[in-house]
Amino acid sequence: MTTVVKIGGNVIDSAKALERFLDDFARMEGPKILVHGGGAVANKMLEDLGIEPNMIDGRRVTDEDTLRIVAGVYAGWVNKKIVAGLQARGCNALGLSGADGDVLRSRRRSPQPIDYGFVGDPEMVGTWFLDALFERGMTPVFCAITHDGQGALLNTNADTVASAVAIAMGARLIYCFEKDGVLNGDGAVIPRLNEAKFEDMRTRGEVFAGMIAKLENVFKALHGGVPEVIIKNSEDLSRPEKGTVCTIC
Amino acid sequence: MTTVVKIGGNVIDSAKALERFLDDFARMEGPKILVHGGGAVANKMLEDLGIEPNMIDGRRVTDEDTLRIVAGVYAGWVNKKIVAGLQARGCNALGLSGADGDVLRSRRRSPQPIDYGFVGDPEMVGTWFLDALFERGMTPVFCAITHDGQGALLNTNADTVASAVAIAMGARLIYCFEKDGVLNGDGAVIPRLNEAKFEDMRTRGEVFAGMIAKLENVFKALHGGVPEVIIKNSEDLSRPEKGTVCTIC
Repeated sequence: MTTVVKIGGNVIDSAKALERFLDDFARMEGPKILVHGGGAVANKMLEDLGIEPNMIDGRRVTDEDTLRIVAGVYAGWVNKKIVAGLQARGCNALGLSGADGDVLRSRRRSPQPIDYGFVGDPEMVGTWFLDALFERGMTPVFCAITHDGQGALLNTNADTVASAVAIAMGARLIYCFEKDGVLNGDGAVIPRLNEAKFEDMRTRGEVFAGMIAKLENVFKALHGGVPEVIIKNSEDLSRPEKGTVCTIC
Repeated sequence: MTTVVKIGGNVIDSAKALERFLDDFARMEGPKILVHGGGAVANKMLEDLGIEPNMIDGRRVTDEDTLRIVAGVYAGWVNKKIVAGLQARGCNALGLSGADGDVLRSRRRSPQPIDYGFVGDPEMVGTWFLDALFERGMTPVFCAITHDGQGALLNTNADTVASAVAIAMGARLIYCFEKDGVLNGDGAVIPRLNEAKFEDMRTRGEVFAGMIAKLENVFKALHGGVPEVIIKNSEDLSRPEKGTVCTIC
């Protein structure tokens, strides 16, 4: 079965954490797809350029200047650094934005009620192209830049890219980040989480905002036919016993 | 026959010139490959970041900060903008750095006599991958970032990328830029230029520095088996009668 692995900006921002993750990812068997963010690196560059990051509910408002920078950081520097790192490990990686091979087309988000600018939500995944890459033993590496099919690039949430790709490919999905999984009130990892328990935790205010968005993506993916979603520390990619396994029931 | 077309930073820097060029390129028949620069856009961003471009003989010295920016601009913003523009015109483009699919591996240039930093010269082109893309009707779009196979990205001259790819593919090669071709002392286009005539012009000081480097690439490509090299204005891509046709004899 195909596996989609998503890594966040915090892993990317640390050279050591990234090297370790790439070691583990390159060794993973079977067809696999990597999806990466890069927000922390982009924020640093926007800051250096004197462009203030504009976030609403953890989502970036992307004007044209910001798009230029995030497209550069995500699709250029970060994506190519990861692809070159995987090539050095014998993993034949191919970096992709959604525009490349028309592999991920998005719809620009409506400016109502909030205008997020050049931001899109995934609409169509080019599974034939991904299958063709697998046939040749290649590993797609997605950044979180997509396109609308009419020439515009769109900034897209990397968690959403990962779930859209996993749904389209019927792949299992692993979200890697800097924590050990979904944590309970005592800070311990919850080994298994179903939707009823998530709703219960949400009602009781036991899940923080960033994790709610992530878990919404998780359950959307599960309802979309993804057989399994795991949330774990990027250091634990090669440890199947670690993290939180999310299921519908 | 496959055609490799190279466009320079001046075309990319003008939205109108780029749109026009992409119209013409998308309509070109047969298998084709686009190679682009982006130096003018990168210089602007380096300037905004307070990083002084460091050029020796028209070639950029690339330290790590500069590499981060040029990889972002070339492989990210400019490459994806072009790919999205071609997709909008019905041309199924795929953006590539040399690391992607290991399609263009370079050797880092020796630090003697001049240390250019993270700069590489092409060593190996993954023709099997380009052929596989053509079989699926896809159009590769190269930026001028390559890799060394050991995890390092390398800044590479875009003219050199174009000639290396054309040699490996046995493709004809078109260099597009902002002038109408190779000009004689009166500013008129020379319709045909062979190597003896070039050497003669060089001896008489009738070719300027930037053009000498370009023509050296041209004759290297011709000696490498490229059947034809044309130098022309990017506005004239669809006009076969325009420009300078370069041949060995």
